[in-house]
Amino acid sequence: GSNLPTEYKAEVAPSRSSDIMKHGFPGFDNIRSYGDYVLSYDQRNRTAHWVFEHLTRDKVSRREGVKREESKFQEDTTIHAYFRATNEDYHKSGYDRGHLAAAGNHRFSQKAMNETFYLSNISPQVGKGFNRDAWNLLEKFVRHLTKKYTNVYVCTGPLYLPRPEVDGKLYVKYEVIGKNHVAVPTHFFKVVVMERDVGQYEMMSFVMPNQALGEKIDLKQYLVPLDTIERASGLLFFQKIPKNAFKKINGR
Amino acid sequence: GSNLPTEYKAEVAPSRSSDIMKHGFPGFDNIRSYGDYVLSYDQRNRTAHWVFEHLTRDKVSRREGVKREESKFQEDTTIHAYFRATNEDYHKSGYDRGHLAAAGNHRFSQKAMNETFYLSNISPQVGKGFNRDAWNLLEKFVRHLTKKYTNVYVCTGPLYLPRPEVDGKLYVKYEVIGKNHVAVPTHFFKVVVMERDVGQYEMMSFVMPNQALGEKIDLKQYLVPLDTIERASGLLFFQKIPKNAFKKINGR
Ligand SMILES: [Mg+2]
Ligand SMILES: [Mg+2]
Repeated sequence: GSNLPTEYKAEVAPSRSSDIMKHGFPGFDNIRSYGDYVLSYDQRNRTAHWVFEHLTRDKVSRREGVKREESKFQEDTTIHAYFRATNEDYHKSGYDRGHLAAAGNHRFSQKAMNETFYLSNISPQVGKGFNRDAWNLLEKFVRHLTKKYTNVYVCTGPLYLPRPEVDGKLYVKYEVIGKNHVAVPTHFFKVVVMERDVGQYEMMSFVMPNQALGEKIDLKQYLVPLDTIERASGLLFFQKIPKNAFKKINGR
Repeated sequence: GSNLPTEYKAEVAPSRSSDIMKHGFPGFDNIRSYGDYVLSYDQRNRTAHWVFEHLTRDKVSRREGVKREESKFQEDTTIHAYFRATNEDYHKSGYDRGHLAAAGNHRFSQKAMNETFYLSNISPQVGKGFNRDAWNLLEKFVRHLTKKYTNVYVCTGPLYLPRPEVDGKLYVKYEVIGKNHVAVPTHFFKVVVMERDVGQYEMMSFVMPNQALGEKIDLKQYLVPLDTIERASGLLFFQKIPKNAFKKINGR
């Protein structure tokens, strides 16, 4: 309340994570709140279930002195050693250490950028044609949305999608790398909510296979209905926004 | 405190689930407390992460009038429809609806037994040679421990273990069945803690492949170190019991 002493008001002021998560948590498993993103960790697969970011034009702008080269991939020591991915796990795996919360979304602060290099925020991604190309294009597209919208909320995560085999049955199959068996997701998702004026929302939801797709891709081809991602991931997104508050979903 | 009015004391009395879970939760994802067992649900795989039971000689004894035939497999409507297994998913899948918390552990009450038939407590299990044989033998063995020990705590769950393929890499691979893509675990675990006198603990931890093993098995062959199950499942068991409080681990 407004009659609280100042120091107490500061203490109870909403943290950055309540801004980021204001439209609801997709799940509640092993939550970590970092300076500028929130993460849920999948201890079985040694990578995140999801990471959540809140982007604004200001925050994604380059700030002088903030350098990606200063950031180093590092173990997340808040994760129990049994379940923690290490740089060694990725070494000679053939996969990039791919960001879920993109480093380029956190250029306003070296500390915020460094925190995106925790291996809890990293998944094994195909390098050429995916991490460095198609997926990077999607990340740039999401960042670009901040030029048009006041608030951009983005939730990113891995998927392990089933495929039919010759026996006619469906199988989930994915590689695990390194001594700690870090899962290599078959796909990745991004669910993006854009707010132009207060309460005027749009949503876009993407799924991309963890494959060399190249750099000449049409992002629209990777739009999928939200419930496809929800069913596959076991998560529910932006539940605090009433469905009828969305002016556009996947551009329509 | 002891000076609270009686009706309030009843309200704050420890529930059955705090008895069951007194030695710690293996994880905190989507917890459900039923009358006589506690469950953590894996929304992505449409089956439990783990279920926890507390067995005593009294509780596992047959009570007149409690009949397994009265219990029906039923959807767990506390699970969101996107993530909920149905009987239809199992139909013609070739798999049994295998209990995690065994029905036979809850024969003191028809309601308690009925609750073990929620499909959240069920995983697809190979029927002949496993659910009806080897796994059933393990369940009976655990139940039998109540004759010797005052308290028996048992945590049961699925595993999805990686295997090497011809390319020299490790892959996790499992079938999913039905419209809701219910995962067929590659293995199941049971972690059992027995308390003879107060504070005198023993532990046994088992892993069995979800395969026809037959009925002539030696349970000792399925004992594994606890940390093997912990690393594979992403869970940590009985953390509230100091490691040095165990008089025996896996019989030694
Ligand atoms: Mg990247
Ligand atoms: Mg059974």
